[in-house]
Amino acid sequence: MLGELKTRLSGVEFVYLGDTAHVPYGTRSAAQVRSLSSACARRLRERGVDAVVVACNTASSLAMDAIRGELGAVPVFGVLEPGVEAATAALGSLERILVLATRATVRSGAYGRMLRERAAGMRRECEVLEIACPLLVPMIEEGWVDHPILHRTIEEYVGGMDRGPGVALLACTHYPWIEEAFARALPGWKVVNSARAVADAVTRLGGWGSGGRAGGVEWIFTDPDAVPEFARRWIGELAE
Amino acid sequence: MLGELKTRLSGVEFVYLGDTAHVPYGTRSAAQVRSLSSACARRLRERGVDAVVVACNTASSLAMDAIRGELGAVPVFGVLEPGVEAATAALGSLERILVLATRATVRSGAYGRMLRERAAGMRRECEVLEIACPLLVPMIEEGWVDHPILHRTIEEYVGGMDRGPGVALLACTHYPWIEEAFARALPGWKVVNSARAVADAVTRLGGWGSGGRAGGVEWIFTDPDAVPEFARRWIGELAE
Repeated sequence: MLGELKTRLSGVEFVYLGDTAHVPYGTRSAAQVRSLSSACARRLRERGVDAVVVACNTASSLAMDAIRGELGAVPVFGVLEPGVEAATAALGSLERILVLATRATVRSGAYGRMLRERAAGMRRECEVLEIACPLLVPMIEEGWVDHPILHRTIEEYVGGMDRGPGVALLACTHYPWIEEAFARALPGWKVVNSARAVADAVTRLGGWGSGGRAGGVEWIFTDPDAVPEFARRWIGELAE
Repeated sequence: MLGELKTRLSGVEFVYLGDTAHVPYGTRSAAQVRSLSSACARRLRERGVDAVVVACNTASSLAMDAIRGELGAVPVFGVLEPGVEAATAALGSLERILVLATRATVRSGAYGRMLRERAAGMRRECEVLEIACPLLVPMIEEGWVDHPILHRTIEEYVGGMDRGPGVALLACTHYPWIEEAFARALPGWKVVNSARAVADAVTRLGGWGSGGRAGGVEWIFTDPDAVPEFARRWIGELAE
């Protein structure tokens, strides 16, 4: 997500807030996700930002009102609408969308509702299936992005998908790390994620001048000693 | 752990505090584990209890001072010393102890130090190996206690153990749920956990009369909506 945004908005300074003291959000209750998301929003408001991207499907599914409540007039972008847009745009002649997400996102039912509404608005027949994949975030954080156990676990989650092909929406911002693994487990399916669509929406907001350090990123972690190794590598690569 | 304590102290009323708003502790930083543990200790002090068992190896490895600081004269039992006692008592003619734990517990080095000291005190040769098994807690919370992916993951962690047999200490209070899986992956090894030794130590404190409801348990969860399904089943079984 940040990579996509940096490519489009090269003169803008980014603040990346990672709530490492409270991950994972995907197994928490709705009330807890709202409370944690509000605290992050307050922190960004105090820091001073011109727009906020909620780069987490769980928070986007459960806490957009709470986050917007904290941020007043600052525009806030979630990942649900861009995800819905990306998935329906990829449909073509297909009639089935598979939403792969954390337990909290699936439980919220937000993607199912929005995808069905959108399909109805397009006057299309479209079956929506949602599958919770709770162990994938911990595996990605372990760096097991191309590990036999990761592949086996994805098969466990999507193995029953004999009703394909269709569009598989990676509805968790961790999952683009394992996009290839999903493509392998779902032959013939179109695998999409919302990062590009979110970056497009933020870019369309307009008014992006050349801010401070061009393309610089300020990293804030609520627990700086709990940044997973895979994220440290990614930060290093982004800085190159 | 609670099961062992209930068996021994049948007339005692228990308060079980599960910090479901902040699990898992095992991937957090030491500072964060101390802060969360202190908050739990304050809550138990306010509730009023006669003794506290820190039924978590990560908190026992990193936060005993912080917990004792909050609880004043209330006796506090950790799981490290009983675990060290159980592991060394099981040694017999073996000369190798394998500590299986979360990343935070392994990183603390507490078990290695205590086991080596204890072995030296017993004038024994003893090799101590510590292995972090970060994905096992999420799998147990998913209920995958006898799942092919769990077995495969344990093999990934202990598969290199060609230097056996010895004593395998389950140094995480989640792991007794998968004791059989460890036994299967480590043929010839003695698999021990500290629950019994902890319960013995608490019983030896003495002064346990018949409290309120005999053997009753008051359940407190910091996020009541985030109690995993496997824990709900366990609570149901304990109540029978």
